[in-house]
Amino acid sequence: MARRILGLDPGTGIFGFGVIEVRNNSPKMVTGGVITSPKHTPLPDRLLEIYEEINNIIKETEPDEVSIEKLFFTRNITTGISVAEARGVATLAAHQNKLPIFEYNANQIKQTLTGYGRADKKQVQEMVKQALGLKAIPKPDDAADALAAAITHYLMTRY
Amino acid sequence: MARRILGLDPGTGIFGFGVIEVRNNSPKMVTGGVITSPKHTPLPDRLLEIYEEINNIIKETEPDEVSIEKLFFTRNITTGISVAEARGVATLAAHQNKLPIFEYNANQIKQTLTGYGRADKKQVQEMVKQALGLKAIPKPDDAADALAAAITHYLMTRY
Repeated sequence: MARRILGLDPGTGIFGFGVIEVRNNSPKMVTGGVITSPKHTPLPDRLLEIYEEINNIIKETEPDEVSIEKLFFTRNITTGISVAEARGVATLAAHQNKLPIFEYNANQIKQTLTGYGRADKKQVQEMVKQALGLKAIPKPDDAADALAAAITHYLMTRY
Repeated sequence: MARRILGLDPGTGIFGFGVIEVRNNSPKMVTGGVITSPKHTPLPDRLLEIYEEINNIIKETEPDEVSIEKLFFTRNITTGISVAEARGVATLAAHQNKLPIFEYNANQIKQTLTGYGRADKKQVQEMVKQALGLKAIPKPDDAADALAAAITHYLMTRY
């Protein structure tokens, strides 16, 4: 039986998404990309676009579960607030579509994919490529990060 | 001509709202209250409830504008993230209802209502009572804070 997981990497300017399908314990990429808004787009417009796009992605790819990166801020709190607002509307879209939502923080994602909680971005992306049997690392980075969240959820809940 | 302003004070456990109507330069309270979720309610459920309730409030009270408090965190960032997520879904609801959204930070609200940017909560609430010609300070605090945001927007844009 196939199982589809939508991974999300929240952001306001760039919001990453990626869908994987797992069949016979083998994860494959269904789609991956980013929702972008031009600079200076008012935040309410960005939030609406993210909300509508995530609804579209869910309708088109029909995932069974959602895996979303947990936010963690130590420095730029102002940016962090708008990223959290974007994460809020994405969570709302997933929940309205009755999808169970799972959260992983950046260290869990790194640890699960590479075996090392302090791995760098490049190592994680390399593992995304390998885990999905791709010829190249998915672009842009935010799409690869979203796929990493999806793969982490698969690896954490293999049955 | 009457003008209605919906004030919002974002939170996850308690989300304050208040609607004022301004007629002949005199603001009156239409309604005020809070959207609450029991402790341990999962965040996606809270976000959905806040989103639906704000949609209901907009439908019932038909405001022309929204005034929402800007978030500012220095300490509890973890709580801050979920408050920002709640603020995100509220902003989404307002924007989907095509209401213009205005933001004021806590100091602007204090300054505008009391003339003093570092006034305490009590002084602000007392001014809410006076500005709206109420017999008592609206309860709970989060409803009074939401009304304060609405009054601030009125005072900043009097025409």
